[in-house]
Amino acid sequence: MKVIRDSIHGDVFLTDLEFDIIDTPEFQRLRRIKQLGTTYLVYPSANHTRFEHSIGALHLAGRIADRLMLPDEERRNVRIAAILHDIGHGPLSHSSEELLSRYLGLSHENIAVDIIINDSNISKILEKNGIEPATISRIISEDSGYLSKIISSEFDVDRMDYLVRDAHHTGVAYGIIDLDRLINTLEISGNSLAVNERGLKAVEALLVARFLMIPTVYLHHTSRIADAMFFKATEVAVEEGYLDFCALCKMDDYDILNLFRSSRGYVKDIGRRFDERRLFKTAYTRSWYEIDKKVKNRIIGLRKNIKKWNTIEDQIAEDYNIEKGYVLLDIPQAVSLKEMDIKIIKDNQLTGIDRESPLVRILKETQKAQWSFNIYTLKEDAKRISGIEIESYLL
Amino acid sequence: MKVIRDSIHGDVFLTDLEFDIIDTPEFQRLRRIKQLGTTYLVYPSANHTRFEHSIGALHLAGRIADRLMLPDEERRNVRIAAILHDIGHGPLSHSSEELLSRYLGLSHENIAVDIIINDSNISKILEKNGIEPATISRIISEDSGYLSKIISSEFDVDRMDYLVRDAHHTGVAYGIIDLDRLINTLEISGNSLAVNERGLKAVEALLVARFLMIPTVYLHHTSRIADAMFFKATEVAVEEGYLDFCALCKMDDYDILNLFRSSRGYVKDIGRRFDERRLFKTAYTRSWYEIDKKVKNRIIGLRKNIKKWNTIEDQIAEDYNIEKGYVLLDIPQAVSLKEMDIKIIKDNQLTGIDRESPLVRILKETQKAQWSFNIYTLKEDAKRISGIEIESYLL
Amino acid sequence: MKVIRDSIHGDVFLTDLEFDIIDTPEFQRLRRIKQLGTTYLVYPSANHTRFEHSIGALHLAGRIADRLMLPDEERRNVRIAAILHDIGHGPLSHSSEELLSRYLGLSHENIAVDIIINDSNISKILEKNGIEPATISRIISEDSGYLSKIISSEFDVDRMDYLVRDAHHTGVAYGIIDLDRLINTLEISGNSLAVNERGLKAVEALLVARFLMIPTVYLHHTSRIADAMFFKATEVAVEEGYLDFCALCKMDDYDILNLFRSSRGYVKDIGRRFDERRLFKTAYTRSWYEIDKKVKNRIIGLRKNIKKWNTIEDQIAEDYNIEKGYVLLDIPQAVSLKEMDIKIIKDNQLTGIDRESPLVRILKETQKAQWSFNIYTLKEDAKRISGIEIESYLL
Amino acid sequence: MKVIRDSIHGDVFLTDLEFDIIDTPEFQRLRRIKQLGTTYLVYPSANHTRFEHSIGALHLAGRIADRLMLPDEERRNVRIAAILHDIGHGPLSHSSEELLSRYLGLSHENIAVDIIINDSNISKILEKNGIEPATISRIISEDSGYLSKIISSEFDVDRMDYLVRDAHHTGVAYGIIDLDRLINTLEISGNSLAVNERGLKAVEALLVARFLMIPTVYLHHTSRIADAMFFKATEVAVEEGYLDFCALCKMDDYDILNLFRSSRGYVKDIGRRFDERRLFKTAYTRSWYEIDKKVKNRIIGLRKNIKKWNTIEDQIAEDYNIEKGYVLLDIPQAVSLKEMDIKIIKDNQLTGIDRESPLVRILKETQKAQWSFNIYTLKEDAKRISGIEIESYLL
Repeated sequence: MKVIRDSIHGDVFLTDLEFDIIDTPEFQRLRRIKQLGTTYLVYPSANHTRFEHSIGALHLAGRIADRLMLPDEERRNVRIAAILHDIGHGPLSHSSEELLSRYLGLSHENIAVDIIINDSNISKILEKNGIEPATISRIISEDSGYLSKIISSEFDVDRMDYLVRDAHHTGVAYGIIDLDRLINTLEISGNSLAVNERGLKAVEALLVARFLMIPTVYLHHTSRIADAMFFKATEVAVEEGYLDFCALCKMDDYDILNLFRSSRGYVKDIGRRFDERRLFKTAYTRSWYEIDKKVKNRIIGLRKNIKKWNTIEDQIAEDYNIEKGYVLLDIPQAVSLKEMDIKIIKDNQLTGIDRESPLVRILKETQKAQWSFNIYTLKEDAKRISGIEIESYLL
Repeated sequence: MKVIRDSIHGDVFLTDLEFDIIDTPEFQRLRRIKQLGTTYLVYPSANHTRFEHSIGALHLAGRIADRLMLPDEERRNVRIAAILHDIGHGPLSHSSEELLSRYLGLSHENIAVDIIINDSNISKILEKNGIEPATISRIISEDSGYLSKIISSEFDVDRMDYLVRDAHHTGVAYGIIDLDRLINTLEISGNSLAVNERGLKAVEALLVARFLMIPTVYLHHTSRIADAMFFKATEVAVEEGYLDFCALCKMDDYDILNLFRSSRGYVKDIGRRFDERRLFKTAYTRSWYEIDKKVKNRIIGLRKNIKKWNTIEDQIAEDYNIEKGYVLLDIPQAVSLKEMDIKIIKDNQLTGIDRESPLVRILKETQKAQWSFNIYTLKEDAKRISGIEIESYLL
Repeated sequence: MKVIRDSIHGDVFLTDLEFDIIDTPEFQRLRRIKQLGTTYLVYPSANHTRFEHSIGALHLAGRIADRLMLPDEERRNVRIAAILHDIGHGPLSHSSEELLSRYLGLSHENIAVDIIINDSNISKILEKNGIEPATISRIISEDSGYLSKIISSEFDVDRMDYLVRDAHHTGVAYGIIDLDRLINTLEISGNSLAVNERGLKAVEALLVARFLMIPTVYLHHTSRIADAMFFKATEVAVEEGYLDFCALCKMDDYDILNLFRSSRGYVKDIGRRFDERRLFKTAYTRSWYEIDKKVKNRIIGLRKNIKKWNTIEDQIAEDYNIEKGYVLLDIPQAVSLKEMDIKIIKDNQLTGIDRESPLVRILKETQKAQWSFNIYTLKEDAKRISGIEIESYLL
Repeated sequence: MKVIRDSIHGDVFLTDLEFDIIDTPEFQRLRRIKQLGTTYLVYPSANHTRFEHSIGALHLAGRIADRLMLPDEERRNVRIAAILHDIGHGPLSHSSEELLSRYLGLSHENIAVDIIINDSNISKILEKNGIEPATISRIISEDSGYLSKIISSEFDVDRMDYLVRDAHHTGVAYGIIDLDRLINTLEISGNSLAVNERGLKAVEALLVARFLMIPTVYLHHTSRIADAMFFKATEVAVEEGYLDFCALCKMDDYDILNLFRSSRGYVKDIGRRFDERRLFKTAYTRSWYEIDKKVKNRIIGLRKNIKKWNTIEDQIAEDYNIEKGYVLLDIPQAVSLKEMDIKIIKDNQLTGIDRESPLVRILKETQKAQWSFNIYTLKEDAKRISGIEIESYLL
């Protein structure tokens, strides 16, 4: 057994097999991928990485396996799945994930599967230890029973770890959750997981923690601006031949920032703006409830028509006499809180958390308010755009 | 300046005047009054007292005064009001407060005013330092402007301190709130206080923290059983001449437990049950939504008719052949969340938090679910009573 | 399995047997015995009790048993020994222990053995579960192998728990130790315990933590004054027939304070002084290095001659025209740091920590400086005594 | 006033001037310089940067200025000095500092002065606000009175911040210190700073914390190996024309890692080894007490004769048939604990801490044991070298 000291969980014990996985170049790359992407531009301490988060997820998966008294093989597999669940992340985590999703239709889980199954150092280690790589990848990417629920579900080890870790490293107080209680009230129910009644408050606290972390950290407007700049610079880098989208998922934060720095023109300027934290400003913002439903549908529709999205940006830039690339639309997905499907065991009956918790019901409703549509541009031009009639561009 | 080391706020600095107040017998009594009353029977570490909580409240009042740049005299007064706001608490804090309210119609603020204004060591110290006792008592007991809001309002120093302190000493994770952000976003608005927009999430977190602490700690069913036993034993002690209600508010936890121990019969038995943690059990429980409205009104009406309340308890005991005093009704007040009236400053306009926060709106609604009506009795008799038709007793 | 929420360790799981032990009147009494005795008069939050500390010790014993992969029976026994190790404590913990030691020559371990072995609720529960009470008492009171080392030794669960707990509840920063690392580097060595090399720094940190906690908390001069007052009041209470020393070890903090309050004369006055925190002051103090060796030996010798000790106090009082009982000598034992005998495993060899750590060697030396001899009296008389020539009284 | 949320100090308030300084490219560069250099290869969470540490130092300087009631201008200056004290750090903080010191004889303070005084965005901002840059740089680099003591001395804001921050982000427990007590017991004494007697334990705890952090974190053997590899790769990069030493101090972690990656041969290999964490191993190690004094002097002498140092490395490589660059000598400076000169105010007299604290005296002595001389090489060759007679190479 080897030990790694973690800032959240203290001593984390690892088997030799797990340590071999950590020692691969594929896994070591995660050391150079910030867990919270561009959030460090808002919270200066948010420099923690996918590397330590993955180790934390393994640790929690082990604790849950112990709690559920899983057989040795399942325990081994779910820990490996936990440590590998983020192996497919690219530079700045969700920042590049959004791009890979837009352009290649890939999630980080898809990429993880690819790394685990296909000829990699990791697949070799698994096979050498008599583990079928497909078994692990199935736990990560398919909804295949309680093991996969531990990795990805309404209260998986992913979010148990990241809420606490993100709070610790940003200094934001809202991510504190009751890990002990959450883990100790989990039960296997059929082929899935459920929380027994004694854990209901802990689950509510988890959901509220996430609910409060979303606007404060995960969707902070400054980091959304930085993301929009990152998206555009990467797109232009691809257009101008500096980069191939397919390569993105193998890169780390160092690669992409360096690519920006060593480019020319627009891409280089955005790189420098990252280096010097000279970000665009919000010129125009409308919340979920401020936009007419039809208009909103058109806006969200642009997420599936990137060409038109770009055209509108360019058109606005031209209309306002701003250089191309310096007007950006920010169109987030509608926020969804997966946790809503949590099953509760009450009086030996399985019931849904939204039946048991009015608080959870309202979170479901309220989450929409966390969506907003924004236009970003240079500080000096922001005011001019603020009166834009966006509808005319959407036709 | 003197320093006291507090488990929550670290070094707390006190002026000589404040230290003189602390050094009075009236204030030292708070050392022997548990902050959370009978909660120590659920959370063994919940032994913290009104003494350290009062010092914490003073510390926070000082921080807020600094933030609001209050003039020296107001700063001095609000700190003194904060340290004295709980001087009127009796044994086990809210446990005796409920009794004083039922029988004498007194709140702990009423009693505090009495101690501060009338001839006490505290009033003498205030006068010696040129402070009108009535000025302090007005801040505590009247809604007289922003100073009184700091002491008692939707987000006063009382609950800022107790949420964090109760979490620290019980080990429950939900009381963590963002004190820094709450204090740093407070503003004076007219003659009242408001939170500016940047503090909205911190306020939501405060409200949710309290919302989660209520069932987990403040209304935990075990401590409600202990409270019901405490109420009855004290009532019987008064009836049997061991005690005078008027004396209760000068007593501490040691006095009352000792009085129980040195009594006879029922009171002695309850005292021993406290010592040995042999509590009654819940025989019957109905939540807010499980009781017909008319019945509920009758039940809650009993709070103003203690005689009838007692008669019903005795009647049930008789019907089930249980000794008098061993069937107890628990009829809590409908829960209210004062914080609902918090004012938010948004775009330089004053608005209500329930306009800005759907989460807060639902808390308001949901709090009702935290109410329940219960009947407690001895373990061996609990099952027999569980089928009781309570309506017939209410007529 | 039942769960108790602890302020330090979070969820602590207990077997039914362990819960039965907790539910005895003997164990419940620990709820009313402050862990740190009179320290609450210095650190207002220091109200935690032997009850939660005992549960914490059980929890740590379980973690160590898991780490050492002890067989089930040994694991069960060491956890029970841990939860019972303080069952013999009397009012204010070490305050009454000092008295029981002076007058009856009993340690709290002696009393614990008595409770465990002889006819008590606890011995009955043990026997009913097929456990020989003597087996448990031997682990607590004899140096009988590695199980007893877990309970009482250089780095036992007692001090692992109390350092962290006392820091948490006083607000003093020095008690933070690395529980994870301490537990994870323990090994069985022969019939004893040792720490492997990787834990050396964690052990040094433990020793330093304790070293810093001693003057800051455990031997704080104010709480030593309160202790001296407690000793004298109890002695007088015995002399005057209010109390029997043998009864002391069955009492709790409520009993003794109430006994003081309901006495007359001197004992009542001291009781009131506790209630109002009007403590004696230090009139005279000399450190270890300030007293001539021969004189020091005579002073320490008084610990075995209480009669002479009392005579000297009375003589000084008379000489300075002070009422009897209001001049007190404080003669502590020479401080000892048991941890000095910790065994370290280095390159598969057993070696002593003082060979490996110069820091530990010096702590051993330095601890003497924590000893001092003091005379306490009323504030108004303190100055007059400060010039006393103590030697003349010692002849 | 603007606010930054810090993981250690919570809300940190900044004046517009301070925010302007932060907004310069020179300061933003600190976001990309790891506080603990190569330590992230040991403690995966150690990704915090000089950026947040500098903001933390400013915050503490402000608290100390408030405590000492410094006049406005001094308060302003010492906060600016604090935020700028690390502006001269290069890639991986101390890793590049060692190289700049070896080759150019520059400390990071020298470089800071250069940046502050000479024509930079920072000097311009200072001048625009009527602040003489030389005033600030003098506080940072000269021993010019109590302001400079706040920045750099035995208990400066630098180490107060980094001990706590490094503990928080590595997960190591030893860095916990009592910031409150340290700050609240500081006093101006002549033109310097001193701690009053009440802070003695807090100072001892600070010194011990640092003492324990040195082997556990700051001189962890794995990060020393990584440093040695970094030194050699950078030296070779200079030799081969990829890099100029003078440029190093303007670079960040991204620049240097990217330079390694885009080089060829040895430098590229070391770059990849960093990426994949394939570090050299210790082939030979001798502690301070294991080496003859004469030999030790020769070894330490090599620090001033880098040419000979390199020659010996190459000679050993040749003798053992290892490729050039793959045998590295690690020759640290003798550890020094500056804190030893802390002044204590006792009974209104100034005295040295080593007079008052035997613990501190021994730390001074013991620190030597933290020095060791090591030879690192590839894993497969380590064993062969372990028997080397190093003396023969030193002649």
